Amino acid sequence: MTQPNMETFVSLCKRRGFVFQSSEIYGGLGGFWDYGPLGVELKNNIKRNWWRSMVQLRDDVVGIETSIIMNPRVWEASGHIATFADPMSDCKDCKRRWRTDDIAINDKGERHCPECGGELTGARMFNLMFKTFVGPVEDEASVVYLRPETAQGMFVNFENVLTTTRRKLPFGIAQIGRSFRNEITPGNFIFRDREFEQMEMEYFVMPGTDEEWHDRWIEDRFNWWLALGVRNQNLRIREHTKEELSHYSKRTVDIEYDFPFAGFAEIEGIANRTDFDLKKHAEFAGRTLQYFDEATGQQVVPYVIEPAMGIDRCFLTLLIDSYAEEEVRGEKRTVLRLHHDLAPIKVAVLPLSRNEQLVPPARRVWDLLRPHFMTQYDDAQSIGRRYRRQDEIGTPYGVTIDFETLEDDAVTIRDRDSMEQSRVPIANLVPVLREKLDPSLPA
Amino acid sequence: MTQPNMETFVSLCKRRGFVFQSSEIYGGLGGFWDYGPLGVELKNNIKRNWWRSMVQLRDDVVGIETSIIMNPRVWEASGHIATFADPMSDCKDCKRRWRTDDIAINDKGERHCPECGGELTGARMFNLMFKTFVGPVEDEASVVYLRPETAQGMFVNFENVLTTTRRKLPFGIAQIGRSFRNEITPGNFIFRDREFEQMEMEYFVMPGTDEEWHDRWIEDRFNWWLALGVRNQNLRIREHTKEELSHYSKRTVDIEYDFPFAGFAEIEGIANRTDFDLKKHAEFAGRTLQYFDEATGQQVVPYVIEPAMGIDRCFLTLLIDSYAEEEVRGEKRTVLRLHHDLAPIKVAVLPLSRNEQLVPPARRVWDLLRPHFMTQYDDAQSIGRRYRRQDEIGTPYGVTIDFETLEDDAVTIRDRDSMEQSRVPIANLVPVLREKLDPSLPA
Repeated sequence: MTQPNMETFVSLCKRRGFVFQSSEIYGGLGGFWDYGPLGVELKNNIKRNWWRSMVQLRDDVVGIETSIIMNPRVWEASGHIATFADPMSDCKDCKRRWRTDDIAINDKGERHCPECGGELTGARMFNLMFKTFVGPVEDEASVVYLRPETAQGMFVNFENVLTTTRRKLPFGIAQIGRSFRNEITPGNFIFRDREFEQMEMEYFVMPGTDEEWHDRWIEDRFNWWLALGVRNQNLRIREHTKEELSHYSKRTVDIEYDFPFAGFAEIEGIANRTDFDLKKHAEFAGRTLQYFDEATGQQVVPYVIEPAMGIDRCFLTLLIDSYAEEEVRGEKRTVLRLHHDLAPIKVAVLPLSRNEQLVPPARRVWDLLRPHFMTQYDDAQSIGRRYRRQDEIGTPYGVTIDFETLEDDAVTIRDRDSMEQSRVPIANLVPVLREKLDPSLPA
Repeated sequence: MTQPNMETFVSLCKRRGFVFQSSEIYGGLGGFWDYGPLGVELKNNIKRNWWRSMVQLRDDVVGIETSIIMNPRVWEASGHIATFADPMSDCKDCKRRWRTDDIAINDKGERHCPECGGELTGARMFNLMFKTFVGPVEDEASVVYLRPETAQGMFVNFENVLTTTRRKLPFGIAQIGRSFRNEITPGNFIFRDREFEQMEMEYFVMPGTDEEWHDRWIEDRFNWWLALGVRNQNLRIREHTKEELSHYSKRTVDIEYDFPFAGFAEIEGIANRTDFDLKKHAEFAGRTLQYFDEATGQQVVPYVIEPAMGIDRCFLTLLIDSYAEEEVRGEKRTVLRLHHDLAPIKVAVLPLSRNEQLVPPARRVWDLLRPHFMTQYDDAQSIGRRYRRQDEIGTPYGVTIDFETLEDDAVTIRDRDSMEQSRVPIANLVPVLREKLDPSLPA
């Protein structure tokens, strides 16, 4: 299967309304992106699918949604204020600031300014958290941070969730929400953003069962990607080396995808965070964050397994992997073979032409379908071009209204992937489409 | 109907996992709140319902999702840097800072510090936008803001949406997302937050049709609140006076709710923003933001009607309005009569008791229902107490598994509102519940 040329792909994303540059009319802002009319539907479908698989379908996970700005003590406890930083160097001549690791070392083992060749200062650590001030005074006491991960919102609510839901170990807390990292070198489209959205789940287990649960979650999460149709040959699992493990992690495994512009790179991490976070928050907040184990009569601090991913990168993965260019009867077609549950538009309503006899029944079919599925109506240009337009945005089914419809009250359903067509009475259209799209989805 | 005592209500919100104080274990942070396991489900249901009514069911509105941090020129153009400010005064003695309007005027017509009685400085304007720095250098050139409204993200994407969706006037752009305002006096629980979430829609119309569309949207939006079950006697519509109109507005109407702690207060605003925003962005970005009207062959700058609300306040309204305390056979019950589509949990699965014969079939019923509805399983304490617990969180239906179930493979469905019970074969349970919950909801 083809992987897209990145330029073609980014252009499709803009042209069809998946992703726009943030504040584009002002020249944009590096590392910030907007989701257009189709992008927001795909993003919402990804989130709903994840929430359904992580929260609704499971008997052991609940969701929460915490604030982006939190009490800054949270980040002291988590270690982010001390360690969430990259090394930076300033040019002594032109005063520009660089990420030290990004500057090539010359044959004398020295780094010089890539802009002017000037001498650089030694590396200083630059914290990647965006900071702001809460309340009317801008001083050290009012500094707060935009969260760099949603995870801490779940750790500090461990006790609240435990008490209000009366859970027993093992149980998980899931969250979807925006995070912010002041990356020095954002790039590769929406691959590395400064503002991004995460889907994270903290799964609390009895110490000693953590390694087994870690393995189970790695398998579960890998299967989620496969279930969404991502091709096995483009995925791999990679163990973090001892050197790259985060300060809180005992073992971390990445699910990686083979990106056309970057090769294999992380799309989801599954970490064994041990009891690090709960213990740190207990220490900094001056309280106990424990679980009473009825079986042994002991208080324990649970271990945590965390599957975590960025939605923007997930979005990119799913779009790239579903992208195909094919030849059909001598003509090129571009098709997004998106999983039905992810497709932004489920059904396109297409009168054979913009004919005064065909448009009114086509509009009636649109009205019939809209309460049940995300639909799009299109009557501009030839039917062939409109099929191509729908293929290009991944719409699973096209419903065509033609002159026969005026006689038999039936329409033609066209399948995006097989391009096969079948005739269905309008009276059966909703249940037939529902069955085709996915009979297992909930009301 | 009863409106709740605020203290009782806030306590219920915490105790049952609707709303927690942000970073509570660190003493919280003023104006920031977290949504617990039930809160996040209710909030997601509100968002889905609004999106469905605003985007999916309409043929003239599309959604987008823009970044929280935008190019700062956006806020110059919109007027927020110049005018989005409150007057502040400092105490010359104790150095504390106050919102000038919040300080009582004494009989000499003067304001003194509420803390120490000291003399105050004259009022200076304090901008309510949170600011931060993007990139490695903290200076004036790197200042960016957290958006105080989602609206501008839609205005700056007007052209992108117009081009990619080939829309004709009138059409709308809808968005759901977090916004931030550094309020000097946040308060009344989640009524006025510093971090909050908005649902806004910008509806672009031909100039001259704006007043008619404004009236239609006021009616449409009022009906949305009624359709969700909010009682008419607690709602009213209020015209903004000339003095309180925003700088961009020709006319604004608020939908207000009669809050127990505050009396009538805004829950949604419907504003006629005229062509103010598009013209300002065209001016500041040095381009034309127009629409070509085929009928007249003219370029026009559309007018904008904007229905906008904060989800947190909507959440509070829906919870308060659905809250009831009743006497049932001599016992008090608290019930949330939430609209079915909003209830966090749709069905509770309740074995008559934690009996070894009843628990396995009850678990099987739970497994059967989970793919279709958000469900909760509960076997702790008496069945009466468990019904009360579910009433208190607004669960529309309880499914009870009893000893008869072992004979007849049927269960009892109990209705939250009427408390009536009916017997249903397990084989029919999913379609019966689906029909009861809402036959019109989409797959």
